[in-house]
Order: sequence, then structure tokens, then C-alpha cells
Amino acid sequence: MSSSNLEQVTKEVEKMEVNPAAVEKKEKAPKEKKNNPRALKTPKGTQDYNPSQMTIREQVFDTIKQVFKRHGAVTIETPVFELKDTLTGKYGEDSKLIYDLADQGGEICSLRYDLTVPFARYVAMNRVQNIKRYHIARVYRRDNPVMTKGRFREFYQCDFDIAGEYDVMVPDAECLRIICEILDQVKVGKYVIKLNHRKLLDAIFAICGVPADKFRTICSAVDKLDKSPWDEVRKEMVEVKGLDGAIADKIEEFVKLSGPPFELLEKLRTSGMCDSNKDAVDALAQLETLFGYLEALGCTERILFDLSLARGLDYYTGIIYEAVLTQQDRVGSIAAGGRYDGLVGMYGKKDVPAVGFSIGIERIFTILEEEYTKNKLKIRENQTQVYVVQMDKELLKDRLKICSELWNAGINAEFAYKVNPKVAPQLNSANESLTPLTILIGKTEIETNTLSVKNMKDSKQISIPRENFTEKIKELLNNLN
Amino acid sequence: MSSSNLEQVTKEVEKMEVNPAAVEKKEKAPKEKKNNPRALKTPKGTQDYNPSQMTIREQVFDTIKQVFKRHGAVTIETPVFELKDTLTGKYGEDSKLIYDLADQGGEICSLRYDLTVPFARYVAMNRVQNIKRYHIARVYRRDNPVMTKGRFREFYQCDFDIAGEYDVMVPDAECLRIICEILDQVKVGKYVIKLNHRKLLDAIFAICGVPADKFRTICSAVDKLDKSPWDEVRKEMVEVKGLDGAIADKIEEFVKLSGPPFELLEKLRTSGMCDSNKDAVDALAQLETLFGYLEALGCTERILFDLSLARGLDYYTGIIYEAVLTQQDRVGSIAAGGRYDGLVGMYGKKDVPAVGFSIGIERIFTILEEEYTKNKLKIRENQTQVYVVQMDKELLKDRLKICSELWNAGINAEFAYKVNPKVAPQLNSANESLTPLTILIGKTEIETNTLSVKNMKDSKQISIPRENFTEKIKELLNNLN
Repeated sequence: MSSSNLEQVTKEVEKMEVNPAAVEKKEKAPKEKKNNPRALKTPKGTQDYNPSQMTIREQVFDTIKQVFKRHGAVTIETPVFELKDTLTGKYGEDSKLIYDLADQGGEICSLRYDLTVPFARYVAMNRVQNIKRYHIARVYRRDNPVMTKGRFREFYQCDFDIAGEYDVMVPDAECLRIICEILDQVKVGKYVIKLNHRKLLDAIFAICGVPADKFRTICSAVDKLDKSPWDEVRKEMVEVKGLDGAIADKIEEFVKLSGPPFELLEKLRTSGMCDSNKDAVDALAQLETLFGYLEALGCTERILFDLSLARGLDYYTGIIYEAVLTQQDRVGSIAAGGRYDGLVGMYGKKDVPAVGFSIGIERIFTILEEEYTKNKLKIRENQTQVYVVQMDKELLKDRLKICSELWNAGINAEFAYKVNPKVAPQLNSANESLTPLTILIGKTEIETNTLSVKNMKDSKQISIPRENFTEKIKELLNNLN
Repeated sequence: MSSSNLEQVTKEVEKMEVNPAAVEKKEKAPKEKKNNPRALKTPKGTQDYNPSQMTIREQVFDTIKQVFKRHGAVTIETPVFELKDTLTGKYGEDSKLIYDLADQGGEICSLRYDLTVPFARYVAMNRVQNIKRYHIARVYRRDNPVMTKGRFREFYQCDFDIAGEYDVMVPDAECLRIICEILDQVKVGKYVIKLNHRKLLDAIFAICGVPADKFRTICSAVDKLDKSPWDEVRKEMVEVKGLDGAIADKIEEFVKLSGPPFELLEKLRTSGMCDSNKDAVDALAQLETLFGYLEALGCTERILFDLSLARGLDYYTGIIYEAVLTQQDRVGSIAAGGRYDGLVGMYGKKDVPAVGFSIGIERIFTILEEEYTKNKLKIRENQTQVYVVQMDKELLKDRLKICSELWNAGINAEFAYKVNPKVAPQLNSANESLTPLTILIGKTEIETNTLSVKNMKDSKQISIPRENFTEKIKELLNNLN
């Protein structure tokens, strides 16, 4: 997906309520700086993530990676900074949001602004003919941060792209299927994927009589229809962009149309609205092909063919799409992408066509964190399976031996870092971390060469032989799952 | 572990053959810059990682994380840049290697140089009382890169630390056990963990008659014994650092001693070498405690009690250790750490004692990559389990349906992005990516409502019913493992 559009996704995903044309301001240096040479804070717009937050993040990462791998994707890594020249001229007005590294001699570099430009640079530089890759990593924007609304200067992007020469709409269809799998699995609630075709949109502009040199600017205006009513968008077209009012009214007839894929396709055909334009007819044929594939992939009911979807800026060359949440309390974009056949060619000698998307992963984190808070769910920060508790004095080495055997058997185990800990704090530790089993060891257990094992959920306690006890523990853990 | 020592580990791990006192030079701007505004390269000292490299990296990450989780560890994330003030005064002369962000208004920031300073800042800032955390992330140093020797400006560090007030040597022992588990599991070959106690070393200096204000500088000299012979180190002590020759000779009597933990401990005690100094006696008692725990943890045979281990700079306050590879072709440090009870207190009001280590993960990657190359092993970049092959024309939608069912069942599946692909390239794709099974579908299969399944290893082919075929595929995949 194109950098500009990716950037737009992020804005939509993360910054719904913030003026997108945030102007760079000279920030005041923080007050404490002079008084305290080691101000205890993270830089503006950044934050630490504690073990609870990391647990949710890792769960989401794992789920998403599993879906990508299910589709045979590989991953790559690129440096966190690029030559400044690699980024220059890619982000238009938003270039002012790029973080530059200081000139300390040598190359001038900037922190990556998204993952798409590095991907295009990678494909071109390594002369990659085809690749199906995902990349989950942090990007950097000197934007005006609104931490409470999840708008950061350092945040994760989660990109998937298929680059290579293939038959029309085949990889595109798989991308849409992957979005569905991911959104279903991360459980962010109901959503719909709005879909349009950049060539159809241009053809519609031509049919309505928009001059060719105004296609992109009118396209940007249409892109605002998800946030502004038609009247405002029409006003922008006519008053700001100098479009003839009658042409704008014709555009309205198209962009108000949306519906189930095959239904709207049929409507456009029977109405003859597009018959006069070959590009429109071609785009509709491509969409019919796509919808057929999506039907075979079992995801047409998630798709809304929507002629008002424009997806901002210049790079898209084929289908464009945007997944939006539809639950009442969770509006906004959660994933977006499309086909961009010209971007890699901007870096290398050869064009490599590509299609892909970006998942609004920070938005997903926020939703899931809210779920945990709302439902008062406790997050398990560690994955300890057994806590080894000492019931009498001077048994630390026995605990160490028991833990060693557990670790050797691949069982996650912890113990208290005290020589003679009290029993209650040990059980509390196990309880607080939701550890399912405790092994209790005291004089009795030592004398009888046994171990007591307590299920922390039902408090049932059993005695097992000390010898080869890890087999029994594994069995008990398996029964818990 | 302390930043200085961490930095040292990295140097030893990654830069064995490079002059450690590399001086910052003004770099020439790359030539192509003026001619080609989009120079196709990554910044100096950085590189892309391709899918093969990422596969090895992810395997190592997964193995190491699994060990950390086995010990109940949690993880945190901190920003990739910190306020410059947070880093200032932490790295001595090497501060010149810190990457600064450009002053674009507002706070002055720098890229993180290691993970220890951010950890200490995190613990102090969030008033953490105790935490057992790992952190695997990239750090940045404007050092002179030697790419062929694995010396980069952007590289991974892999840190584990236990912070909190606990009984003497208990968490320290677990750290050593974790290092053993990791090095055993990542299969980097034979290694030994050299171990010493910072307080014992200082006591030895006192016993030998080193003036107290020369302890640290003499300690740095001793630290060079792993690379330089005694004569050179003695020369430095006497000629550069002004130590009395007789005192240096006494030091030699100590630092030439190394051996199995209990054996050397016994030798030091029976010889009476340390009896005159209370700190030495205390340190030996602590070490005896540690060795007892290590015995219970089953890892004494990996430990070499070595009085010449000094571990560089100032922050360590207790045991220090360094794992070194002992195979002939693989010398050098692979992990190192120790106890540092004063570092967190430099950021917060309260000291939080801590012990930890850093794994030389880039070194591990290099070793494993060399193993793959040497043994001509093919790296599986993706995890595709089934490739769905079309044998006759016009069966794309059938393939899509089959793939959908596989994906729904959680099976990793791929197909060719062509409407009518030839059979050979499809089978080649499956072979090249080492995909274990192919599903073959042609007219015959459609007519008989069956699927042909081919085991790509032994080329055996069977026919299975189309209905509920994913169950049978799961069974076949299970039998392969």
C-alpha cells in the first residue's frame, strides 16, 4: 500500500478526533530539565509498556503472525532509520513530521515514517521479483501527540504485502481474506470492509465530466465523505476546487451508491451508468472477477462495495479497501490497503506490482485493553505453571532441585528468593500470578519422599511420589487445559 | 548489569578483532548521494534482514523467550529513544558513540545505547519494587562498523534482570542457571562460565597492598588478562598506573588462580591467603553459598571460579560472570553479567538491588548462520504445510475453496496466483519451500469428489474423500511430525 495512504490509515485509525492538519509547533523544553539533569520521563509522545500491556500486545502479535504464516508469508526486517533521501518526497506536507537524526558527520538519516517506503526500497534494492511478506515494527512521527487518545509519536504498524506479477485480482482476493481472518481472530467486534476500484472512480469522474487534471483533487474531496456530509464535500469541489456544480451533482449520483458486491455491480450494469466508458466497464469486469474469488473464499458478506471510498492520495492503481468497525461504541478504520503497481518502480529500474494492507494494531491494543478493564479481567503477565512452596525451614536447596527438574522437563516454575520464606507470601505470589499448581514441600514430604500438589483453583491437594514427579505434573497440567 | 559492562560485553561479543578504542572519524558523505537522490542503500552500519535470516533470528528469539518464560519472567518495552539527559554521563568516553536526534524543537533525544539504562530508568520512574524481566530489542551505536565481522551500528541486545530485595545469592544463582539453559538450547557449542566476586577482587587488592584509590584502575588492568599476557598487564600496572612492582607480583599470585568452584574455594581457605581480610572472608562465604545453590541447580560443572575475571567498569557490586565459548573455532564471550545494587538508585530516590545478564545474541545468529552455510542446510522461510495444486484448467475457485477450508481448520496453505498455472511450477514452489504435502486437484478429483494428496518427501500419493478432508490432512500432518 502506498505510503501516503498508509499514513492516512494510521491517522484515521489512531487520531479520529484530532485535527489531521496538525501544525508543527515549537515545543517548550520541559521545565524540570534545568533543575533535574535526569528528568524521570520518556520523551514526548512515547511511553513505556509494562508487563500487562506487553502481554496483550504479544497475544495480538502472535495471533496476527499466525494468520500471516497460515498464508505462507515470510517476514523481513529493515533498519529503524533510513537515508533521509530515501524518505524525501514521499510524504508530501507531512514530511515535516519526519524525525531526523542529528548531523554527527557522515550520512544524513531519518527515522522510518512507515513500513511501506522501506519495503519498496528493500524490494528494489534486493531486486526481489516476488515476495509475500509481513512486517510488524514501530514507526516514528513528530506529530502532536494525544496520549489519552492513543496518538503517539512512536507506534506499531503491521503491514502485509504481496509483490509480484500475478493474474488479476488473485493476490488481491487473498489479502481481503487475510484481513477477515485477522479481524475475526483478534475479536474487535463487528466490521465491514468497504471496497472500491481506483480505476472505476477515475472513470466515473470522466463520465461526470471532471477534467482529467482535477481527478486527484476531486478524489481527495470524495475521500472526506466518511467524515463530512455531501453538502460540505460538494462545496469544497465547487468553491475551493472550481468544479462545475452540475458535474458535482452527477458525481453525487455515483458516490451515494453502496451495497453488497454483486448487487451493486448488477445495478451499475443494468442502469447503464458506466456503459459509455471503457475503463469503467473494464474495472467492473475486474471487480466481478474479484467478487467471484471472494465468494469462493467465503468472505463476500463482509464486503461493502462503496463508490464513495476514495482512499486519499495518489499511489493506488487498482482496488482499494478499508475495514471499519460497525459496533456502536467502536467506530473508525481498523485496517486499510489496496493495489499499488508503481511504488517499487520509484526506487528501482523495474516496476514490481504489489497489493497489501496495514492493520491498525495500536487501535486493536486499545480496544482489547479496554475490554480487560471493562470486564475486570486479570491479565496473566507471566506463564508460570508451578510455584514451588517451602512449608518448613531450611529447604531452599530442595526447592532448587525440584525447580531444576521442572525446568529440565520444560515446565515453567518459580520459587521464592528467600532462604526461609513464610508460607503465606509464597501462596500469595502463586495466586497473584494465577499460577495453576503449587508444589508444597515440608518435613513430611521429605521424610516420605513425596510431594504435595495443590490445584490453586479448587484448593484440592494430592500427594505424589517424589521420583519422576515431573511426569505426573505434566499430566495434571494437561488435565487443567 | 551495568551499562558500561554491557557495552563491554557487546564489544567482546561482536568486535573481538577490532580495536576497542575506535576513534570517531568524520565520515565522507557517500559519493552516489549527489548523482542519485534515492541512493539504494541502507545507512552505514545497518542492514536489511531477509526472510532466511529472519527465520534463524525468530527461532533463536523463540527459544530464548521460552527459557525466560520457563522462569516466570515478564517483558517490558521502552521507547527506542530517550531524553539525552537520561543517557548523559552513563557511558564515559563512549558517549561519543551515542546517536542524537536532530534538534527539531522541543526535547533533545538520543537513540538508546543499551537496554540497561532504559531498564534502570523504568524501574526508578515506575517505582517498581521487584521485577524479573527480559527485554530483547535493538540498540544503536555510532561505532566504526565492520559488517563482515558482525559489528553493526544497529544490533539486538537480549537482557534478563531480576531487581528486588532478596536473600543473598538466590536470584544470582537462577541467573546462572538461565544462562546455561539458553546456551544449551541454542546449540552454540561448548562453553564455560567464568565467575568471580567484585568484593573478593577488591579485598585481594587490599591484601596485596594496592592503595584504595587505585582499586578501579588496577581492576581495569586485570580485566585485560583475557587478551593480554601477565607481563603486559604488569607493565601497565607498574609503568602506566604507578603501582609498586612488588604489589603487582602479589596480585599475580592471586589472579593466576582458577578452577572448579569448590576446589578453588578450598584452596583459598586452606592456603590462608585471604584470612587477613574480613571482606575476602565474607565474599568467600557468599561464594560458598552460591556454589551450593548452583550444585542444587545442576550447573556447577559449567562454572569456572576465576580470580582473573574483573569485568571492566564500576557498577558491579557482587558476583560477576562471563560465558565464553571453548570450541577451537569459536572463541570469545557469548554472555555476561553480574550484580549491580546501585544503578537504579542513580535515577530514583530508592536503591533497588539487581542482578542480570546480557546474551550476545548477534553472535549466536552469526554462529547459527555459519552452521547452516557450512552444512548446506536449507532454511525453511515459511511454514506452509499444504500447497494446493491445480492439474487441469479452470479450477481456481476450487483451489480457493480448498484453501479456505484448510485455513478455517488452522492449516497453513498456499496456492499459485494464476488462473491456469502449469503443474510443474506449482510443484516446484511446493518443493522449494519444503512444503510437506500437496493437494492435487484435477477433473478426475472433481468428478469423483475426491482429492489426491502427495507426500512431497517420499512422493507417495493417496486419494481421500473431498468431504471433511481437513481432518484427514491434519492426521497426515501429525504423522509427519
